[in-house]
Amino acid sequence: MDTDRIAADAARAARPFAETEPRARAQALVAVADALDAASDELIAIATRETGLAQGRLVGEVRRTTNQLRLFAEVIVDGAYLDARIDAADPDYVIGPRPDVRRVLEPVGPVLNFAASNFPFAFSVAGGDSAAALAAGCPVVVKAHSGHPELSRRTAEVVTAALAAAGMPDGVFQLVEGQERGVALLRDDRIRAGAFTGSTHVGRLLADIAASRPRPIPFYGELGSVNPVYATTGAVAADPGLLQGFLGSVSGSAGQLCTKPGFLFVPADAELEPVADAAAAVPEHRLLNPGIGRAFEERRSAVLGAPGVTVLAEGAVRVDEADQRFATPTVVEVDVDTLLAHRDELLEESFGPLSILVRYDDADVLPELHRELFPGNLTSTVHANDLELADGRLADLVDALAETSGRVLFGGWPTGVSVTSAMQHGGPFPATTTDATSVGTAAITRFLRGVAYQGAPQSLLPPPLRDDNPWGVPQRRSDAGRSAGWGSLAGEY
Amino acid sequence: MDTDRIAADAARAARPFAETEPRARAQALVAVADALDAASDELIAIATRETGLAQGRLVGEVRRTTNQLRLFAEVIVDGAYLDARIDAADPDYVIGPRPDVRRVLEPVGPVLNFAASNFPFAFSVAGGDSAAALAAGCPVVVKAHSGHPELSRRTAEVVTAALAAAGMPDGVFQLVEGQERGVALLRDDRIRAGAFTGSTHVGRLLADIAASRPRPIPFYGELGSVNPVYATTGAVAADPGLLQGFLGSVSGSAGQLCTKPGFLFVPADAELEPVADAAAAVPEHRLLNPGIGRAFEERRSAVLGAPGVTVLAEGAVRVDEADQRFATPTVVEVDVDTLLAHRDELLEESFGPLSILVRYDDADVLPELHRELFPGNLTSTVHANDLELADGRLADLVDALAETSGRVLFGGWPTGVSVTSAMQHGGPFPATTTDATSVGTAAITRFLRGVAYQGAPQSLLPPPLRDDNPWGVPQRRSDAGRSAGWGSLAGEY
Repeated sequence: MDTDRIAADAARAARPFAETEPRARAQALVAVADALDAASDELIAIATRETGLAQGRLVGEVRRTTNQLRLFAEVIVDGAYLDARIDAADPDYVIGPRPDVRRVLEPVGPVLNFAASNFPFAFSVAGGDSAAALAAGCPVVVKAHSGHPELSRRTAEVVTAALAAAGMPDGVFQLVEGQERGVALLRDDRIRAGAFTGSTHVGRLLADIAASRPRPIPFYGELGSVNPVYATTGAVAADPGLLQGFLGSVSGSAGQLCTKPGFLFVPADAELEPVADAAAAVPEHRLLNPGIGRAFEERRSAVLGAPGVTVLAEGAVRVDEADQRFATPTVVEVDVDTLLAHRDELLEESFGPLSILVRYDDADVLPELHRELFPGNLTSTVHANDLELADGRLADLVDALAETSGRVLFGGWPTGVSVTSAMQHGGPFPATTTDATSVGTAAITRFLRGVAYQGAPQSLLPPPLRDDNPWGVPQRRSDAGRSAGWGSLAGEY
Repeated sequence: MDTDRIAADAARAARPFAETEPRARAQALVAVADALDAASDELIAIATRETGLAQGRLVGEVRRTTNQLRLFAEVIVDGAYLDARIDAADPDYVIGPRPDVRRVLEPVGPVLNFAASNFPFAFSVAGGDSAAALAAGCPVVVKAHSGHPELSRRTAEVVTAALAAAGMPDGVFQLVEGQERGVALLRDDRIRAGAFTGSTHVGRLLADIAASRPRPIPFYGELGSVNPVYATTGAVAADPGLLQGFLGSVSGSAGQLCTKPGFLFVPADAELEPVADAAAAVPEHRLLNPGIGRAFEERRSAVLGAPGVTVLAEGAVRVDEADQRFATPTVVEVDVDTLLAHRDELLEESFGPLSILVRYDDADVLPELHRELFPGNLTSTVHANDLELADGRLADLVDALAETSGRVLFGGWPTGVSVTSAMQHGGPFPATTTDATSVGTAAITRFLRGVAYQGAPQSLLPPPLRDDNPWGVPQRRSDAGRSAGWGSLAGEY
């Protein structure tokens, strides 16, 4: 298979790419962003046809994707991501004489990135995982998602050409298609890390392959999430638009978002009619591809067929002659006991415009209920009024959400993840296979490893560790004697 | 099995321990250090009997262990380890209006630490992994090594009492014995991370268990390493004591160190007699326990029996009536072709006082030879003279060492790992199961995960993310408008 050549090309590019100055890689990332922006009309036209996503959404997604590349350019120019540490030699160090030791984060080597179907730009060929890996200095092989093959090819052409024009080494960016090729590369010893966005089932399969290689590699999979939302009595009373806002988050992009709220907990006496009204106003939206459409139909039938489920908005799924599905929102209602009794049918993620309202009698049970039902999610959300937020009654619930989620929201909706330095898009399994984030600037650390240099001459140190600091990166220095006073800690603290 | 209760106790301690102020945890770590120092005479007496390690070595190891606890106290008081990030809300953010998002590193939950045999203090009950996990705010369950059971129990008593006296929650530190209990806990859903120091075989088995759980967890195993050393013609000529230094590193603690140099590459014409002389002067040293002794005997026989091997110092292994082995150093010599032809017999780690000298004709082949034979090591070392270090001829070799090792040394010997902020004790598999370090302050990050809070009221934020910053930790703030200028990056770079 040609994967041998692809892995060889990536491996050959690893060293020269690792040695590029961050400033040069930043320029290259900006060049990729500019090239994608310049090609956006053409790319969006292909994406519209291949994915059925709305024009406005795709325009925003390209903007997000290119600005994410620019954000990573900003991150690496600063050089703080290298975490350069310099411990000066110290003959009087408390543990014994200490040599000169310097540590920097270096790229892990070629990264294999399995693209997602639902974000044909932001989590696909030139998406966040590719941006983070390139920023870190790792060659990238993208396994294209079969849902948008033409877009994947054309995007890869734009990226590859821009990287080459910016002087980056050959082999630094490659595209492969087909599941077999993806798996063959994941098993290839020259691939040093994997990234993935998709279903829990496929993600787990791939994670297991990565873990069972003769030489295991880290595998950063973003899998499934149902993103529970808890609304208090006060929130429902204070915000008549709350349920409409919920429905907007459920039905946007036909609910095909990893942060779609799959569960909304409301007080038993909440008036839920507005949900049905809002659902009726949502026009049908194509699902991404026939496979996702069929899976959604099945999940929807399972939920609608579960005992004790009350239908608030039945919605519909229409099939066209090309086997594509078009859906309107389905919203059902259960009580806590029904949810507990039928968790097998109800708890699984529904990838599409479907959500479950859960009526609760007693807010005090929510923290333990959450810990039991939702051990790993990308997000969870609290809607409450100012008094409830201030008086401490929510502290235990917030603890439960923080223990089980990567991001805890207070008000608002989890969809529409912002790309910032403080973003965390990754939570306990099965939200992600590790606790690392795949969105935001902290995502770069996934593709870096620490290397220490002991007693090295200046000329053989990587630039970030040299005393003359040619790249001007932040260096954390521990000089001799600084920590020799540990003996006094007992008194000091 | 009682592991259910142990896991339950650890889980119950997780939240209150996570909420302790770093200053309080630091005080507790210092109290543990002080208590161990106070008990050191008693502990060292037990260790001497159970491990056969020399008194001087054990005294130094206790000192290292307690100062390591104090170092982690220092690390957490400062609070930089929390990596607190605050992105202010920004209606004009380039990707679209941005909410207030704040991110901090929180403890992962209960950590199971499999203790090592060869450092009964520094990598055992109160060793580096326990110190790092406690510093991070994670309850610790130590699986005692069977090689020093009485020391393990007594150490755990001292640690547990000191933590309790310092006000830490019940269940924050527990000891279990027996392989079955260790495996049962590793499979328990309430355990959220594993740490291990030991053999490649056992480490891989445990890593596979951790990866194949219904909910996989990170497993930080420090497995095997042969720590190759490359000596140039200039180094051998300049330093007549080089080979004695090598032998000291090979035979210290009877070679039972993960950083023992297993291979020393020397120019074909190097005079190797001094090694034989130095080896003859080394007194016999007990191996840690009968199991390790037997395994060393087998490895030694395999190496001595491999075709093409020339014996420089045959050494000996003596067995006493208690089935303990006592060894003197074994050093053999091969050429590069023999090493390549008999890699199955020769490449595996020999855990004991044995090392292999490799004669090379052509220094130019070393980088590729190293990449092929040594893809993952804790350390690798170059010995060269000043001219060779300065003139660039070693650049490719140093690249190869950095790609395959956690620490690259220039002169000196890899044993005697210093505990500093820049230390990296972890390298590509099989040196460690991940690229994380298990020594030095960066080790704390293994037991932390990012959690973001979006739009949170001040009263429900964790202290490190609050505007009034009650713990006084470093906060990285991105204010509104700061990054809105990405559009100009193309021009700026």
